[in-house]
Amino acid sequence: ASEAEPNAVAMPRAPYPVFTRQEVGRHRSLAERVWVTYGSEVFDITDFVELHPGGKSKILLAAGGALEPFWAMYAVHGQEHVLEILRGYKVGELSPEEPSQPAQGDPYSGDPPRHPALKVNSLKPFNAEPPAELLTENYLTPNQLFFKRNHLPVPAVDPARYRLEVEGPGGRVLVFSLPELKRWFPKHEVTVTLQCAGNRRSEMSRVRQVKGLEWGVAAISTARWGGVRLRDVLAHAGYTEEDEEAGERHVCFEGLDKDLSGVAYGASIPYCAAMGRGAEVLLAYEMNGEELPQDHGYPLRVVVPGVVGARNVKWLGRVSVSREESPSHWQQNDYKGFSPAVDWDTVDFATAPAIQELPVQSAITAPAPGATVPPRELTVKGYAWSGGGRGVVRVDVSLDGGRTWHVAELMGEEQRPGRAWAWRLWRLTAPVPPDRTELDIVCKAVDTSYNVQPDTVEPIWNLRGVLSNAWHHVRVTVAED
Amino acid sequence: ASEAEPNAVAMPRAPYPVFTRQEVGRHRSLAERVWVTYGSEVFDITDFVELHPGGKSKILLAAGGALEPFWAMYAVHGQEHVLEILRGYKVGELSPEEPSQPAQGDPYSGDPPRHPALKVNSLKPFNAEPPAELLTENYLTPNQLFFKRNHLPVPAVDPARYRLEVEGPGGRVLVFSLPELKRWFPKHEVTVTLQCAGNRRSEMSRVRQVKGLEWGVAAISTARWGGVRLRDVLAHAGYTEEDEEAGERHVCFEGLDKDLSGVAYGASIPYCAAMGRGAEVLLAYEMNGEELPQDHGYPLRVVVPGVVGARNVKWLGRVSVSREESPSHWQQNDYKGFSPAVDWDTVDFATAPAIQELPVQSAITAPAPGATVPPRELTVKGYAWSGGGRGVVRVDVSLDGGRTWHVAELMGEEQRPGRAWAWRLWRLTAPVPPDRTELDIVCKAVDTSYNVQPDTVEPIWNLRGVLSNAWHHVRVTVAED
Repeated sequence: ASEAEPNAVAMPRAPYPVFTRQEVGRHRSLAERVWVTYGSEVFDITDFVELHPGGKSKILLAAGGALEPFWAMYAVHGQEHVLEILRGYKVGELSPEEPSQPAQGDPYSGDPPRHPALKVNSLKPFNAEPPAELLTENYLTPNQLFFKRNHLPVPAVDPARYRLEVEGPGGRVLVFSLPELKRWFPKHEVTVTLQCAGNRRSEMSRVRQVKGLEWGVAAISTARWGGVRLRDVLAHAGYTEEDEEAGERHVCFEGLDKDLSGVAYGASIPYCAAMGRGAEVLLAYEMNGEELPQDHGYPLRVVVPGVVGARNVKWLGRVSVSREESPSHWQQNDYKGFSPAVDWDTVDFATAPAIQELPVQSAITAPAPGATVPPRELTVKGYAWSGGGRGVVRVDVSLDGGRTWHVAELMGEEQRPGRAWAWRLWRLTAPVPPDRTELDIVCKAVDTSYNVQPDTVEPIWNLRGVLSNAWHHVRVTVAED
Repeated sequence: ASEAEPNAVAMPRAPYPVFTRQEVGRHRSLAERVWVTYGSEVFDITDFVELHPGGKSKILLAAGGALEPFWAMYAVHGQEHVLEILRGYKVGELSPEEPSQPAQGDPYSGDPPRHPALKVNSLKPFNAEPPAELLTENYLTPNQLFFKRNHLPVPAVDPARYRLEVEGPGGRVLVFSLPELKRWFPKHEVTVTLQCAGNRRSEMSRVRQVKGLEWGVAAISTARWGGVRLRDVLAHAGYTEEDEEAGERHVCFEGLDKDLSGVAYGASIPYCAAMGRGAEVLLAYEMNGEELPQDHGYPLRVVVPGVVGARNVKWLGRVSVSREESPSHWQQNDYKGFSPAVDWDTVDFATAPAIQELPVQSAITAPAPGATVPPRELTVKGYAWSGGGRGVVRVDVSLDGGRTWHVAELMGEEQRPGRAWAWRLWRLTAPVPPDRTELDIVCKAVDTSYNVQPDTVEPIWNLRGVLSNAWHHVRVTVAED
């Protein structure tokens, strides 16, 4: 190459072979090779199938056909580096006689309008969190600011035609309209904090890149939920309270939100979590006294107190009981925690339990990172929460990076022991240590089982970036006096 | 003083005034001053009362009289530095005409013989742990090696005359002999790990001195317990299953082990922990298939799965239900966790909840600290456990101080979800990193709620040295190849 004449004309590349859509359509499996089209180009992505971050089964849905409908659904693909990867697999051109792929209807066109204050992590599907400084202004998060975590387009549900299917023992399916549910079962209200497993993932990404949405500290919110108890509905369907001898069972939920192949979002929780004496799992139709908003599962969703957001299935379509956990991708091959030693080459999702109860968590919501704070006295605010109904017993706050600690004031009321489903907001007003120009503010919480947050992120790093609950640091500048 | 002649003879001290025992006996309160005798000396300890590490109420029991009977009970006092403190308060001598204090019968003379392998932390009361290297040789700890944690002398209980009192609703007291309990209620067996709140306290003391027994990593052991269910006995007495509307209640236990003033060891657990559907709290009369040993509560003790050792009351004498927690010193003013910012001057025991469920824990039992290990491959062993029935899902082990991690192999069977009351033993065999002469071996566990152990001890330091569950480090030397 170094011998090339400086003004040599680049050799035209050999033209790619030309294929019809029918020819492409013959390559639908690893054995036949996996071909796809994008625009007028043809790609053999066989060697990429195992590398697909979204899993092998998902990418094979597009085998033999056009990528566009799938990328419209999973908008994360609309990035330059994805196109670059694709170009590496180009094997041909579509015949110019082929009609171009019909323009895709945007599957997200039915999504509702959202509040402009939300910080959007992903538009399609919609994922967004409120600004941290607004998050703890209210004990109950206003519905419009409540963090949104959608896996798929928001389904358009006609309330008049909505039906919930509940599979009873032996397979008999009961069908309820919303008015029937409301009429037949008593209404219960519970104040519950929901948290995404990926809350605070961006702190994990800073250690080493992880796969997932870059959530800040606000993929957590609290609402007063109203609805019927899942326990009551399952009892009506013929299930009995927790039976010690029955062995392990799971209550499986299916949403009405579906992917292109018709597979619904799904998740499950242990039977005892649904049917135990104290179980307060709701099929909720109200959120903070209002009808459930579209983004939060209208007209009916599951609210599982103390359990990771991912099991709180929205737009609930079907409930069943099974010896096995939900077969859903999100139950089996996502939302699990692994050792920092495990990477995408070595991960075996079958070796880790699906996340249910979340660990103790807290974060600082004010001051903001990088803020300039007054020189003498400082007020720090934040939230703290733990899974499994374990209440928060203490929040320690440090202004010097964790060397010395203050005990913060916990605000609001304590919920009942073992049923502390909602967060505690907290506040600390303390003198600013003299002669400091910078402060490293830290918080850490303790729950009723005296579990604490780990000191640092590195040792809990995991490839999916979930369960990010190390001490939260906010670094600020002190104004001159 | 600098003017004193170098060879001046020391002035003889003015002789102390002489008192009778009757005169000493007039000083029994802070208002009258608090005097005590030890041997033939008289001390005014009024100013020490508030400083007494064992609490004001305990030291006042000795006011106006001899210290010997109390020190015989709490043998921690038999140390030179305690005598030194006492000497500072000397105010007189006992009249030589006073008969000397009768020799104290040793309240511990009835204590049983113990296994010589135990590492004794305190002889009177008896507190001892097995050597770490023996601890994890067996999944079920042999009774003789099971850690012993007594607060008082072991009471001598005549099995023929033993009675358990159970206070029913309205105050009616039921009385059961041991054969009656065995005859009237079904026998249940549960494998449960018990852990002292002070396990691994010695690591906390290394940061800053704490008050308490210097436990290593072995104040934890596992047994198969056999007995009747507390739930069955309380139901027989007229209590019903957990009633959501009944408000907070507690089941209080009193031991037959009593201090000099006749106050029994006591503790309580939340009512729902005893009466919930899945509750497996035992009144145990068997330990690993044998009659309960004297040190472990013969003939009957409480076993509260998933809960700190201190609530597992031994030599059980009485059970009652109350709106309040046990009034016992050990429930109210001990066995609670505080911020590292709290010291003995600022502590308010009313501000922290009594420890019930313990946080996730793990430790290395082999190799031993300071050992020389083979140069190529190393096997590390240990235990992991969590409170509240939360199982252990993973143990990470590092050979380089926590920079990189391996996943250890969990041994034995998994108990049922939510009822994982017993530890998991674990093992890792890994190559020794080349060119290392020293290794800093670390372990940390993850439980089913994905709680993890904190990285370091300092931020969880607390004045009582409880809840010591930071990463466990063992430093070893690598043998030359």
